[in-house]
Amino acid sequence: MKNKFSNYIDELQKNITDVCEKLDGKSKFIKNPWKRSEGGGGLTMVIEDGNVFEKGGVNVSKIFGKLPKIIAEQLNVNGADFFACGLSLVLHPKNPMAPTVHANFRYFETYKDGALIDQWFGGGTDLTPYYLFQKDAIHFHEVCKKTCDRHNKGFYQKYKRKCDEYFWNSHRNEARGIGGLFFDYCRPNKKMSINDWFLYVSDLGNSFLDSYVPIIERRKKLSYNDENKKWQEIRRGRYVEFNLLHDKGTLFGLKTNGRIESIFISLPPKAQWVYDFNPKKNSEEHKLVEILKSPIKWV
Amino acid sequence: MKNKFSNYIDELQKNITDVCEKLDGKSKFIKNPWKRSEGGGGLTMVIEDGNVFEKGGVNVSKIFGKLPKIIAEQLNVNGADFFACGLSLVLHPKNPMAPTVHANFRYFETYKDGALIDQWFGGGTDLTPYYLFQKDAIHFHEVCKKTCDRHNKGFYQKYKRKCDEYFWNSHRNEARGIGGLFFDYCRPNKKMSINDWFLYVSDLGNSFLDSYVPIIERRKKLSYNDENKKWQEIRRGRYVEFNLLHDKGTLFGLKTNGRIESIFISLPPKAQWVYDFNPKKNSEEHKLVEILKSPIKWV
Repeated sequence: MKNKFSNYIDELQKNITDVCEKLDGKSKFIKNPWKRSEGGGGLTMVIEDGNVFEKGGVNVSKIFGKLPKIIAEQLNVNGADFFACGLSLVLHPKNPMAPTVHANFRYFETYKDGALIDQWFGGGTDLTPYYLFQKDAIHFHEVCKKTCDRHNKGFYQKYKRKCDEYFWNSHRNEARGIGGLFFDYCRPNKKMSINDWFLYVSDLGNSFLDSYVPIIERRKKLSYNDENKKWQEIRRGRYVEFNLLHDKGTLFGLKTNGRIESIFISLPPKAQWVYDFNPKKNSEEHKLVEILKSPIKWV
Repeated sequence: MKNKFSNYIDELQKNITDVCEKLDGKSKFIKNPWKRSEGGGGLTMVIEDGNVFEKGGVNVSKIFGKLPKIIAEQLNVNGADFFACGLSLVLHPKNPMAPTVHANFRYFETYKDGALIDQWFGGGTDLTPYYLFQKDAIHFHEVCKKTCDRHNKGFYQKYKRKCDEYFWNSHRNEARGIGGLFFDYCRPNKKMSINDWFLYVSDLGNSFLDSYVPIIERRKKLSYNDENKKWQEIRRGRYVEFNLLHDKGTLFGLKTNGRIESIFISLPPKAQWVYDFNPKKNSEEHKLVEILKSPIKWV
């Protein structure tokens, strides 16, 4: 499974970056391979200053070694080894009418004395619009649901709710975006073997482009003004707040001495903090904020 | 002491905002009084889009009531009441040649059954330049040292070191800025009565404008280009990282359900995150980064 998923995310990284480069038409992804002194490494792929993408990262990492103390405590195991690999992406489009997207697909194994003792998948995907187009939100969630339904009719509702809970900016009492899917510790059980989980997660990975590309195609050429761009940057401030205050992946990366530039690739290109900024009632900006106050049933 | 320091910070807020308004020549501070449902409140004063100040806040808060659980645990007291007041300021100039400044002066009391059981002062000030002018760094630290020396010849060195330790972006392995002073839990002792601490802290408050105004006067009209502004915004990203990842005041405010817009007034107006940005060797930007790698003895 280790090798199977490892190979899968390499292919997925290639597919996604190929399609995004074509979509962008200007900027190319730069490739930064890196090594982790304790074991493993990764390939960070970054696009900046594009026609379509202002900033984006599609990263693969495969790390192994002694289980860091902080995870060992969480998992209640002592002196274990681990292997973890995953693909993590965030794409921040230039056009404020186009949403930011995030996705992550990961696999974890732990060992004691060389024998496998635990294994699970985790991941998810979520959308962060600056202006709300119902059509986009419905499309994104429909693709999520269709993919989930192929594996278990209960997954969509379950993992959609977990996503709404996870991407919650509690200090603002609002969601980061309009949600998607979030799941973790998906271990083999009576209904799902580890290979069934692999099929589920890889199906989600394969459907990522279907969930996002039609949206970006529709929005990338819409006209916008300086006020729209300012609003995008203010909302991107909230993205920064979530990632630095609440996101477990970011904080985990920092605590385990990860590669800073790869961890922070999720941060937006530009963000603003304007004191007590409140959009005018009934404006498009105000409509978005209202939507973010409580999760919506999109499909 | 409660009333004495409370009145003092009101005056200090008025003096500092008056001088900053004159210095700015364009924008005025807006005043936002707020109340805390559990007891007390504050006056947030904010300046934005000025000639000199791109964004700044000079806030006074005076809060009281049951000691929040999270501080009670830190202080190892149960069921106590508290009173806390302080002035907190951050000024982000428009010109990248001019440094951001932060200062905070605070006083805390705790009570059990109505009787005072503990009291202390805390505070400090520190400077965050985007381009290093030795003259400015020396001036700032000289004012800090002179003020400290009037009260105790050991204070400057002690609190300068604490400041270097506190404003450390550990995940970047660099300082937020070029330091200043940081002190906390300054309780009455053999050498310093609570009134001696008041005299020290108010002396620092009174010397704030001396430490900063000459610097901003020298730098506010220097010419700069888009690259300088970009560098300022990249460095302001590091300011955001410090405040959201490490600053105890910010995290404390969030945990105790403080007024978000007053807490986040410290965040810069604009910030950028450019992937793996490294200034050219021997450039002015590179010189700053080198300086931030280990604390300097400025005076």
